Amino acid sequence: MAKAKKYRLAQIVERLGGEIIGNPLTAVSQVATLENAGPQHIGFLSHSKFRKQLAGTRAGAVIVGRADVDATDLPRIVCDNPYLYFAKVSSLFNPPPAASPGVHPTAVVERGTRIPASASVGAGAYIGRSVKLGKGVIIGAGCYLGDAVEIGAASRLHARVTVYAGCRLGERALVHSGVVIGADGFGIALDGDRWFKIPQIGGVLIGSDVEIGANTCIDRGALEDTVIEDGVKMDNLIHIAHNVRVGAHTAIAGCVGIAGSAHIGERCMIGGGTNITGHADIAARTIIHGATVVTKSIRTAGTYGGNPAEDSRSWAKHMALLRNLDSLLERLRNIEQRLSTQEKKT
Amino acid sequence: MAKAKKYRLAQIVERLGGEIIGNPLTAVSQVATLENAGPQHIGFLSHSKFRKQLAGTRAGAVIVGRADVDATDLPRIVCDNPYLYFAKVSSLFNPPPAASPGVHPTAVVERGTRIPASASVGAGAYIGRSVKLGKGVIIGAGCYLGDAVEIGAASRLHARVTVYAGCRLGERALVHSGVVIGADGFGIALDGDRWFKIPQIGGVLIGSDVEIGANTCIDRGALEDTVIEDGVKMDNLIHIAHNVRVGAHTAIAGCVGIAGSAHIGERCMIGGGTNITGHADIAARTIIHGATVVTKSIRTAGTYGGNPAEDSRSWAKHMALLRNLDSLLERLRNIEQRLSTQEKKT
Amino acid sequence: MAKAKKYRLAQIVERLGGEIIGNPLTAVSQVATLENAGPQHIGFLSHSKFRKQLAGTRAGAVIVGRADVDATDLPRIVCDNPYLYFAKVSSLFNPPPAASPGVHPTAVVERGTRIPASASVGAGAYIGRSVKLGKGVIIGAGCYLGDAVEIGAASRLHARVTVYAGCRLGERALVHSGVVIGADGFGIALDGDRWFKIPQIGGVLIGSDVEIGANTCIDRGALEDTVIEDGVKMDNLIHIAHNVRVGAHTAIAGCVGIAGSAHIGERCMIGGGTNITGHADIAARTIIHGATVVTKSIRTAGTYGGNPAEDSRSWAKHMALLRNLDSLLERLRNIEQRLSTQEKKT
Repeated sequence: MAKAKKYRLAQIVERLGGEIIGNPLTAVSQVATLENAGPQHIGFLSHSKFRKQLAGTRAGAVIVGRADVDATDLPRIVCDNPYLYFAKVSSLFNPPPAASPGVHPTAVVERGTRIPASASVGAGAYIGRSVKLGKGVIIGAGCYLGDAVEIGAASRLHARVTVYAGCRLGERALVHSGVVIGADGFGIALDGDRWFKIPQIGGVLIGSDVEIGANTCIDRGALEDTVIEDGVKMDNLIHIAHNVRVGAHTAIAGCVGIAGSAHIGERCMIGGGTNITGHADIAARTIIHGATVVTKSIRTAGTYGGNPAEDSRSWAKHMALLRNLDSLLERLRNIEQRLSTQEKKT
Repeated sequence: MAKAKKYRLAQIVERLGGEIIGNPLTAVSQVATLENAGPQHIGFLSHSKFRKQLAGTRAGAVIVGRADVDATDLPRIVCDNPYLYFAKVSSLFNPPPAASPGVHPTAVVERGTRIPASASVGAGAYIGRSVKLGKGVIIGAGCYLGDAVEIGAASRLHARVTVYAGCRLGERALVHSGVVIGADGFGIALDGDRWFKIPQIGGVLIGSDVEIGANTCIDRGALEDTVIEDGVKMDNLIHIAHNVRVGAHTAIAGCVGIAGSAHIGERCMIGGGTNITGHADIAARTIIHGATVVTKSIRTAGTYGGNPAEDSRSWAKHMALLRNLDSLLERLRNIEQRLSTQEKKT
Repeated sequence: MAKAKKYRLAQIVERLGGEIIGNPLTAVSQVATLENAGPQHIGFLSHSKFRKQLAGTRAGAVIVGRADVDATDLPRIVCDNPYLYFAKVSSLFNPPPAASPGVHPTAVVERGTRIPASASVGAGAYIGRSVKLGKGVIIGAGCYLGDAVEIGAASRLHARVTVYAGCRLGERALVHSGVVIGADGFGIALDGDRWFKIPQIGGVLIGSDVEIGANTCIDRGALEDTVIEDGVKMDNLIHIAHNVRVGAHTAIAGCVGIAGSAHIGERCMIGGGTNITGHADIAARTIIHGATVVTKSIRTAGTYGGNPAEDSRSWAKHMALLRNLDSLLERLRNIEQRLSTQEKKT
């Protein structure tokens, strides 16, 4: 999509490390899969098991791990982690599209808010009172920022993001379209035969280097803040209820629902479609499979899955038992017959 | 977040009832948890089991139940239901932020629509033809109201809500950002080897005192209306398909999907992540756990859970059986050995 | 909702085929259920089993199958597939609301983009640079189209749709509010103890005759395009991750999550709330029940359900076994007693 400029392999390793085998003046301008690469592309071999893909590639150069240093004659960069190296090369070739600084004439900025000269506010965006934007912040077209919102430097909100009053995002946030930050948490109390709404007076506090996928919702807290710590990465259509805390560098895949006051530890990985119950505590570095139903706290880091969630060994054992239920029934029938035979004998 | 004005305990009980023990002139201006409260805060003790939290609190006053009347020396309000009382105090301290009446100059109002003087229409909002807004309605920035939409008095649509043509909301609605009301239901019929779209000519009819969470979708009906009755409370990212009816005062947590023509009775409580199949009838006052898969009607009120859903007693029994499958297998193995021994004997 | 003009039965069959019994001059102007129809309505009998609904109907005319030709005295149209016929009559009566061609004065169109005279761009919409719109395209209020987006002729984007730069939609697309097309796929690589973002440089390529429900998200590809083929129909709140391919004429119900690089064959039907794991291949014409958890590829077309997914026969068998676990336990207890008795004897 983007028109990347050309880099010689020598320029790449100068920035990213690694070792060149072949002509260091080989120039490439974009990353591609080995299958679809052309001479202007640099491909990568993520695992030795995909080596045969190297045979037919038309890539101009490739990134390989140390074990695959001799798996091709193409100009190549040898490194420890080809997948990560490829990501970094791609990042070099494909910087995020720039946005012209300035406030679009159709945007609305309320009084008490100063937009830094380096910031960009897109068409039709609305910025409330006393909002604080850091340097280089990009607010996409049609975004809504309520009063007293704070967005740290170098953050980008894509088009049509909503941030309710008083919510705070750190630096280098990347927020995708349709995201809603700071809507009321779901707090209601029975008052006779009707629901009484509990005001949600907490906010949302989001650290730095957080990415939030399209149409994800992060509710404001009931009394205190909902907290997303530094480096958290979230996919699309995730529901973060009030007073949840998501620990630093945790990654959450699409369609996950985390109920109120659940605390997710640091560096967890949560698979898509998983539901986590309210008030659960999830230990740091826990890995949860997709479509898991977490019905209580997970105190010990490990890999979990199933409905209800259990550690992956128990889960695998249970799944095997379930799949063999019919053979178990067969054994039961066999026993009953043999027992009847015995009973007749004695 | 909001700057609440000060209330003396005497002023609070005058409005909300309850009994003061201690100095009735004690003034507080905000609610807080016992843990984080300061002298300007009133805290609350929701259950006697949390009594120890009272010991260290720095709150200026607390709300307690009759059983805990002597659990603290702090100025206190004694009442029947501290949680509900706290909600009401919070509501007193934190009224919804007001919006200045008037139509923002960047909003678009089509002909045939009259905006009441008491209503507020935010920046960039679009209001179609022949729309009817009640007194004091607040339409947030960037909202879209199609032709002939009706919104009852004192309703608030937060920023970026979409209401398709002809849909109707009652009074005191609270609709959060990203909500879509009245998109086409998913109606298609096979025409040979292609899908033919069935026009969705019903509308959406929403009662009074309904709250709808961020990015929730309520589809219009195929022939008749999709109906949300009075007092229904919905969380985020909920999918209400065409011709669903949700009974009065039912509460639905986040990420629930309700398929077409399902009828949910009054005063049900539906946990997060639950799926309810099309055409299911759910009895009034049914409670459904989170992540339940409801595959058929529930005719008898009770508590349900599991995949597929069953009443909570059966569910608990099944879960216990499942967890003990390995011991069952162990018993089976033991029997087989004993039986072999017997067979050798006779 | 719409004011449909009147059609005589003779005019209807002239366009749609079928056979009239009764007065061909009977005029109707709208479709309705048999229960709620009045003289101006044409109803339909989808199945013979609903015949008793014909007795009380006040419809002016009805659509019936050949088996039900004599089930009523009302003027009627006899056809092979009353449900499809009804859909077509409804489509005749209820054409999509027209939109006046032209660009609303509050819309923003960047340079390098030419809006066809027959196209309509709504209030507050933003159209980036070098965007290509086909004839008769309708872009709703508040939509965002990034640079170089392409939308085929006769497509309609309802209000507040987001299409990121470079994404392409075919002809006759129908996209509902809140949809996000082309947000970054969820691509991250571990770099020591932090996540490194992998640029998502693929796009989204959507064929013709595709419908996309409210708040659904379709991510752009990591290196190559995410692809939605012709005739695909999608409901609300669906998550399509990067590099997914959805085959032609597949229908996907609400709240489905399809993880990265999964390939769904042509003409599949996927029930609501289903999760499909990354890299899974799903055979063409596969039917998947709602709330299914697909944990691996499905190579053989058929009907599948359960968690984890299995073919419907195995699933039914497993469900029956599970439901009978307690009787199985009972049999086990009984065997243990009998065996003890035997052991005492010998």
